[in-house]
Amino acid sequence: MKFSLTNEFKEKLRLEIKNQNIDFIQKSFENTSYVDITELLYEFDSVDSKYVLDNIKIDISAKIISELDEDNRQNFLKIYSANEIARYLDIIDSDDGADILSELNFEKRNDVITSIKDSEKSKNLKELLQYDEDVAGGLMAIELVKCNINWKINQCIELIKKQAKNVENIYSVYVTDDKGKLLGTVSLKDIILAKDNSSIKDVYDDYIISVDTHMNQEEVAQIMQKYDLTVLPVINKRGKLLGRITIDDVVDVITETAEEERQIMSGITSDVEEDDSIWKLSNARLPWLVIGIVGGLFGAFFLGSFENNYFKNNQMFLSLSLFIPLIMATAGNVGIQSSSIVIQSLSNPSAFESSVTNRLFKVLLVSIINGVVLSLLVYLGLIAFDYFGYLDFGIYSKTALIVSVSLFSIVMLSSLLGTITPIILDKLNFNPALASGPFITTTNDLIALAIYFIVALLLGGI
Amino acid sequence: MKFSLTNEFKEKLRLEIKNQNIDFIQKSFENTSYVDITELLYEFDSVDSKYVLDNIKIDISAKIISELDEDNRQNFLKIYSANEIARYLDIIDSDDGADILSELNFEKRNDVITSIKDSEKSKNLKELLQYDEDVAGGLMAIELVKCNINWKINQCIELIKKQAKNVENIYSVYVTDDKGKLLGTVSLKDIILAKDNSSIKDVYDDYIISVDTHMNQEEVAQIMQKYDLTVLPVINKRGKLLGRITIDDVVDVITETAEEERQIMSGITSDVEEDDSIWKLSNARLPWLVIGIVGGLFGAFFLGSFENNYFKNNQMFLSLSLFIPLIMATAGNVGIQSSSIVIQSLSNPSAFESSVTNRLFKVLLVSIINGVVLSLLVYLGLIAFDYFGYLDFGIYSKTALIVSVSLFSIVMLSSLLGTITPIILDKLNFNPALASGPFITTTNDLIALAIYFIVALLLGGI
Repeated sequence: MKFSLTNEFKEKLRLEIKNQNIDFIQKSFENTSYVDITELLYEFDSVDSKYVLDNIKIDISAKIISELDEDNRQNFLKIYSANEIARYLDIIDSDDGADILSELNFEKRNDVITSIKDSEKSKNLKELLQYDEDVAGGLMAIELVKCNINWKINQCIELIKKQAKNVENIYSVYVTDDKGKLLGTVSLKDIILAKDNSSIKDVYDDYIISVDTHMNQEEVAQIMQKYDLTVLPVINKRGKLLGRITIDDVVDVITETAEEERQIMSGITSDVEEDDSIWKLSNARLPWLVIGIVGGLFGAFFLGSFENNYFKNNQMFLSLSLFIPLIMATAGNVGIQSSSIVIQSLSNPSAFESSVTNRLFKVLLVSIINGVVLSLLVYLGLIAFDYFGYLDFGIYSKTALIVSVSLFSIVMLSSLLGTITPIILDKLNFNPALASGPFITTTNDLIALAIYFIVALLLGGI
Repeated sequence: MKFSLTNEFKEKLRLEIKNQNIDFIQKSFENTSYVDITELLYEFDSVDSKYVLDNIKIDISAKIISELDEDNRQNFLKIYSANEIARYLDIIDSDDGADILSELNFEKRNDVITSIKDSEKSKNLKELLQYDEDVAGGLMAIELVKCNINWKINQCIELIKKQAKNVENIYSVYVTDDKGKLLGTVSLKDIILAKDNSSIKDVYDDYIISVDTHMNQEEVAQIMQKYDLTVLPVINKRGKLLGRITIDDVVDVITETAEEERQIMSGITSDVEEDDSIWKLSNARLPWLVIGIVGGLFGAFFLGSFENNYFKNNQMFLSLSLFIPLIMATAGNVGIQSSSIVIQSLSNPSAFESSVTNRLFKVLLVSIINGVVLSLLVYLGLIAFDYFGYLDFGIYSKTALIVSVSLFSIVMLSSLLGTITPIILDKLNFNPALASGPFITTTNDLIALAIYFIVALLLGGI
């Protein structure tokens, strides 16, 4: 990496943009990755950034526009004319091109499409726009090299030479029949190894993994990861080859999925980052905090009515209330641990899943072990505390009994809820990570409180 | 995907292994990906699996052995002789080979290395064994195609033909000088496009991103992801080309990092999966649950001494204790939200980070907005509850005041702690995700409780 981004360079560039020093701009970026230039331009306003892009090689600036993140790009392209955008779309891979078009408003989108010179390209883009963003069809690029199974190797090489400019990363050539049905693949390595006059038929590999245009992007990512693929062809229902997905797009899907999961687990709505506006950041957090507060108010209400109606002995209620933090923390920890393990196995599906009954049976055993260990620990701890006079229960060992029995029940129930909830959410097509989020944990808290005081009532500690 | 794993096939295979029906085994797996065979064999015991591997093509069974996960492989290879393992290592890529060797005990490892026929291979493997598993050197494979900058294209093609069998995915050829220093790369596409008698010098690309052997694997993953790379060359301090890392290994690193983060966030030690033994599963969960319990006991102890020493008015303590769940839940939610956002920006480092002071200032503003909204909500809610007689505070509006003032302080403090903790953990080279784990959240709970009752004391509600 020969180029390093520094604040000094940033300021120098700012100055030279002001001076319209085109020479400086071109020289500076001659040997710089488009990725680094993109990162740098995030620090500049739209007008300055456009000035830079207008004055460097168009194939580099096209890549920069592809690389920009959605929010920034949508804003940035407002200062571009339909014609200028169309000129970029002529160069940009169709998958990125379709993303850019889908970010424009309806009117501008149509203007841009009609301004694209390459009619093949505009047809492709219109086709890609029909797919949802999060399915295979929305990830694929139309650009690929395919040859007919009846061709000779040298015909294929001619084609590669002709198409090399349009298709960026060629690792292999797809083999189809006369109707365009995908039959297999030949790697560039095999093409180099083969003799010029041999037939594609003799050298191609007919074992090929492909996916349907409608497959969900997470499944696409799982398949590419499982089978260690760098490219994955996309076909329609009749098996016709339509496009290909490259691993770099799927790596982004994997990272986004993980980030989304963490945000759900930590109760942040929508996609926020640390450098977003203060208003957006507060807004993304408040809904879940409010849910937590509402849950807490319910809790207070519940405890209050319990105290008023059942606890004639205030001293006992006071002793019990000392352990509310312990009960709530354990319920939360057990619930999140359980759902985390289930979420993990939901995201790595295996061909041979054990049945839900078997899973629950196992969860039951694990929680019995944990429940027994924890409640014994608490029971003995409290008896010891009491014996040495560190805690004054009022009604001595009864509190210890109530706390440890309810702790055991809570470990059992939270394990069960933590296990079932993500499975149900997944079945209903929600993200199972929601089970570790604030809504479920708040519910779990309230259930734990209820169990605690019901156990107290049942054991007659009142 | 022509092959689908079913329970029927599994049982049929089990039977045919018993009958030693080699023909059935070979026919069944003729057109099956090694990945699917691996998944199937997880359902069989070591002896049956070995019988299958011994009777299919050795290049397929070698891939299956590379694909096995560490725990299973370590166990499985116990029934293999050093000679048998060495025969596989002759075929397996050096990065996977080194992983396999590092899983064997010292004695067997040496036996295997001396049994490897290809002396070049055993030298490479010994070299790779010196690197830690989690740095670039531990991820790289030695196998690659490199040519001298002074060569002609046809010399290079001859070399590719010769090495094609040893190097699996060739997308590009590395260009080095006489001393082996990495200078650049030529893609196979460019080789096909170039004329036979042109020089490497004229067609190679001298802009190349490479990493040092000692770079941490997470950084390697970030670079490959950022620059959309499928392969990444690894060099030593003098710039000499030593090996290459392929994207499939890095995809695994990205997934493992995300899984590890989720486990840390949900308080599960070590790497467990749903299908591990009950004992292992309980064991992985107990440490953090015990920490939670100890925290809860501290809480009880704290509340108890508070009650005994300061609250002459039991009724007030009772009213306040109704809101312990609300206080704790909010502290937890705010803390986890804050650390989650910081963890995210720590895992996507940018060249232009805002300073810690700026970040804290922003956090402060966000938490003031959230704090004001939440405490107003609670204050008004409680006054309304009280007015309509749903809650009986004893000392009416004073409780509402204490709850909402302490809630505000807790939102501020938990935001601050949630922001600082991951930054400090990261600086100390711990995983910042620990900040969302049970240890920190338990501490956060206790601090919130303390603030709550200290605010109560200060506002004289006692």
